[in-house]
Amino acid sequence: MSPCAACKLLRRRCAKDCIFAPYFPSDDPHKFASVHRVFGASNVNKMLQDLPEEQRGDAVSSMVYEANARVRDPIYGCVGAISSLQQQVAILKSQLALAQAEIVHLKMRQSQTSLSALFTNTNSKIMMMDEGSSPTHMLD
Amino acid sequence: MSPCAACKLLRRRCAKDCIFAPYFPSDDPHKFASVHRVFGASNVNKMLQDLPEEQRGDAVSSMVYEANARVRDPIYGCVGAISSLQQQVAILKSQLALAQAEIVHLKMRQSQTSLSALFTNTNSKIMMMDEGSSPTHMLD
Repeated sequence: MSPCAACKLLRRRCAKDCIFAPYFPSDDPHKFASVHRVFGASNVNKMLQDLPEEQRGDAVSSMVYEANARVRDPIYGCVGAISSLQQQVAILKSQLALAQAEIVHLKMRQSQTSLSALFTNTNSKIMMMDEGSSPTHMLD
Repeated sequence: MSPCAACKLLRRRCAKDCIFAPYFPSDDPHKFASVHRVFGASNVNKMLQDLPEEQRGDAVSSMVYEANARVRDPIYGCVGAISSLQQQVAILKSQLALAQAEIVHLKMRQSQTSLSALFTNTNSKIMMMDEGSSPTHMLD
């Protein structure tokens, strides 16, 4: 059996119970290379050993994501993504608040227009009724 | 001069040109402890040396943020924050799309109501004019 990507890079024998083997297959050497470069193999080992087995897969995925972000952006790493997402949330919240204010405004205008249309309509009918009935009164 | 927090923890002499000293003062030992625990001192050293001096302060801040997030949440680290922010952005985007659709709907209704009010009004006036003129015609 060929050693896992971690043992290959660290040039050590890949034991049967190697902690890295389930998450760093030999055919994907970049995955381990980036976490090793950013966190260091011994820290990754320690972090995995501190977690129960069923959570190690998720921990490896998040470490790989973080490491790749740090390689891409050595100053801000994935904190850059957090800050840009926070900005996006703030912009969307203010756009939503504006849209909701416009909805309230439009609904108020809508009910005013309906009321005024009803008023004009009723007034016209009353005037028409008045005009329509006046000849009868005149005939009286 | 007392050694910086990094040299104190690593039990080494703090040289005048120590790369850690400007960012890890001796009175804040936790700051270095967490980046050391997550990234390892030698990786932090390497990452700082790869950057020009004016960018090192920001790099240290983002590494401290990332390390603290990983200490708080050993499975997801700050990727947990990214994922929850991405969910928040998706929710806000769909709320904004709904609000904007409601605005379009209300504006269409508003213009229909105005048109219909205008139409009713004009019709009533025409009818009133017709009724008003008919006696004259009858007299002719």
